[in-house]
Amino acid sequence: METAPVRVLGLDPGSQRTGYGLVQAGPRGRAVFVAAGVISAPASLAPPWRLRKIHQELCQVIERRQPLEMAVEGVFAAQNARTAIMLGQARGVALLAAAQAGLEVFEYSPAAVKKALTGVGRADKEQVQRMVRVVLGVEEPLGLDASDALAIAICHLQGRALRREGMR
Amino acid sequence: METAPVRVLGLDPGSQRTGYGLVQAGPRGRAVFVAAGVISAPASLAPPWRLRKIHQELCQVIERRQPLEMAVEGVFAAQNARTAIMLGQARGVALLAAAQAGLEVFEYSPAAVKKALTGVGRADKEQVQRMVRVVLGVEEPLGLDASDALAIAICHLQGRALRREGMR
Repeated sequence: METAPVRVLGLDPGSQRTGYGLVQAGPRGRAVFVAAGVISAPASLAPPWRLRKIHQELCQVIERRQPLEMAVEGVFAAQNARTAIMLGQARGVALLAAAQAGLEVFEYSPAAVKKALTGVGRADKEQVQRMVRVVLGVEEPLGLDASDALAIAICHLQGRALRREGMR
Repeated sequence: METAPVRVLGLDPGSQRTGYGLVQAGPRGRAVFVAAGVISAPASLAPPWRLRKIHQELCQVIERRQPLEMAVEGVFAAQNARTAIMLGQARGVALLAAAQAGLEVFEYSPAAVKKALTGVGRADKEQVQRMVRVVLGVEEPLGLDASDALAIAICHLQGRALRREGMR
């Protein structure tokens, strides 16, 4: 009996732009591109309505793409309290959408995501973006939000494979 | 034809304890106590499940008590990024619950809430708590979270009345 390949949703939440990217485990444990995009919540909407839009559209992505797990970056620094609160609010409704769909959520540090993609924890954004396209064999350019989200999903899929090997 | 009195939900969100308090406009514009309580989200649960519990129980409070508007404190300072993110997440699912129920949300600074209750923007927590009980004529002690939430609701109800007078 074949089991469905593990599909992971990577998420890069933001109060105005939330990137998402889905990858799944392919042959020999390679990450295969499924879909990616951005949920926009315009600054012209009041925060509660922005949050409702993010939540609603993310629920639709989860419903349509049926991931098994979600991965997000942990936040360890912020410019100021206001920025951190706004980011936290977007993150909150994203984590809620995951919990409501029964997805388990995993958190990775930015350095872990960079290292998983480039081998270096201090790689710059462009290196990470380039490696996302190489790893997934995607030729067309990916937006920054979608590409960041895919990087997180790839990082989780790799870590998942390593953990499974470790358990044998 | 009589219209139903305006009912306001004051909210003091937190990642582990979210206080709520409902008041409504009574005779001569006085605030009348409706209900208050705390939604607990134990630290033993992973954040997504804590957020789901906060969202679910707050939706139930809104459904049961039918407020017209919600009031929360604005956040202008935080101890560190991690704390601000955790608070933001709880705030996010609370604002979402309000938007989903069609409530308009109003934000007040901590100083505005203190001033509305005590006449002084730098009043201490105990003074505010005492005034909440005096204003509402509640004799039994109120928990700190519930009392803070009631203070925000009273502040909004007062501001609302003032704005209406201003418009005449």
